[in-house]
Amino acid sequence: EPGEYRVDIAAGWSIGGGHANGGYVLSVCLQALRNRLDRPDPLVVSAFYQRRVPIGPALIRTEPARAGRRLATGEARLLGSEPDGAAGGELVRVVASFTDLSTASGRTTVLSPAPQLPPPADCQPLYGEQAELPNGIGRRLECRVAELPGWRQGTPSGQALLECWIRFADGHPADTLALPGLTDMVIPAVFDLGEYRTTTIELTAHVRARPAPGWLAFRARTNYLIDGYHEEDVEIWDSTGQLVAQSRQLALLG
Amino acid sequence: EPGEYRVDIAAGWSIGGGHANGGYVLSVCLQALRNRLDRPDPLVVSAFYQRRVPIGPALIRTEPARAGRRLATGEARLLGSEPDGAAGGELVRVVASFTDLSTASGRTTVLSPAPQLPPPADCQPLYGEQAELPNGIGRRLECRVAELPGWRQGTPSGQALLECWIRFADGHPADTLALPGLTDMVIPAVFDLGEYRTTTIELTAHVRARPAPGWLAFRARTNYLIDGYHEEDVEIWDSTGQLVAQSRQLALLG
Repeated sequence: EPGEYRVDIAAGWSIGGGHANGGYVLSVCLQALRNRLDRPDPLVVSAFYQRRVPIGPALIRTEPARAGRRLATGEARLLGSEPDGAAGGELVRVVASFTDLSTASGRTTVLSPAPQLPPPADCQPLYGEQAELPNGIGRRLECRVAELPGWRQGTPSGQALLECWIRFADGHPADTLALPGLTDMVIPAVFDLGEYRTTTIELTAHVRARPAPGWLAFRARTNYLIDGYHEEDVEIWDSTGQLVAQSRQLALLG
Repeated sequence: EPGEYRVDIAAGWSIGGGHANGGYVLSVCLQALRNRLDRPDPLVVSAFYQRRVPIGPALIRTEPARAGRRLATGEARLLGSEPDGAAGGELVRVVASFTDLSTASGRTTVLSPAPQLPPPADCQPLYGEQAELPNGIGRRLECRVAELPGWRQGTPSGQALLECWIRFADGHPADTLALPGLTDMVIPAVFDLGEYRTTTIELTAHVRARPAPGWLAFRARTNYLIDGYHEEDVEIWDSTGQLVAQSRQLALLG
């Protein structure tokens, strides 16, 4: 069918338990949608995670909405795949507006600073040695911190804030298509509240610029955990000190 | 058709120029969607504003997605209305998950404070005397500030931060259905950057609790204006000092 894509959700991006990382799933959906909408850069993206996404075959149905001069908007639905190859239930729904960021022009005023981190070479791995990690999302991304967070030292700090350098472990540079997913590929900030299980309900990401090559500075923060629900705000800055993406998700503990 | 709603976009919620306020439009869409999904509280809501919404008749098409034990998700599309009553082009697309917030239970940890404002009686109207305002969104909402912001005194402060008390001018208490829209009914924070024209591309709102009656404390902030695009983060707190909603929008100047 036009606008339908058969995809394979890869085990290498697993969060364990046979399920895929939500950021990776978002990237796969955005790739299909970009192909359909024919604009290079996702500008704003909203993903509703309705069910966990199993490793294995799946189907993406895309549908364009409005295409204007500046923005093209559309929707992608990730569906499970039945053993006979038929479409299964809906797992994730993504709506996104794409644009060409190279043509963006207008005022720039930045009122909040980038994370202040020592150079990556002076930082240490967040999770331990890359080669020793189990196959899965933790091994796809290198994360380097100035100091190990409290939870990694056995005592959650009580401050739900994480700042680190990140890059793809295989050296692949992050482009604008990768940025929305990247905001959801690091350990959640609530780990430092001693909360190690949390599930994304919805994630919205804004892509603000095309990233320069090199390490990206990553900042995640949770301010409000209420009745088990919490937001997580993420910023990603490139190696030139430019903000390139922001995201906010709503998630539920447990 | 099942799940279709004929609505009248009311002139009383206009932003001028014959167009409706985006927060009001969102509220109308959520009312239709709540009716369809049969859960009381919007929990997370994403709206893509594809075209400005004219005052007058319109059509909302709703479609349920997954209904689980805790959440029910669905989509609403606001379509224009042709002179003969036929459906016109898509104006706004809303995806939302609804729940019953009265059953939410789990840990609460609040790491960031509510706005510190003098009592509403000691504050002054943000826009001037209510009765003297032109018919439109400015007259539907009472907004009271401790001090007039820079732009209201002729000198934008350069800090894109606005804190004020808000309530519906007719005394109608805000419920969870009203909260997402309320986050987009006050003057944008970028007014204090001297930017008086901005258009919402997408808005995501999280509803965190049912608000107590009374005045609501409102905080809006923009940190990053890049190439004309900017986010606006909003928080709404109720009269008991509880966070009841958060939103973030991506908007474009001009």
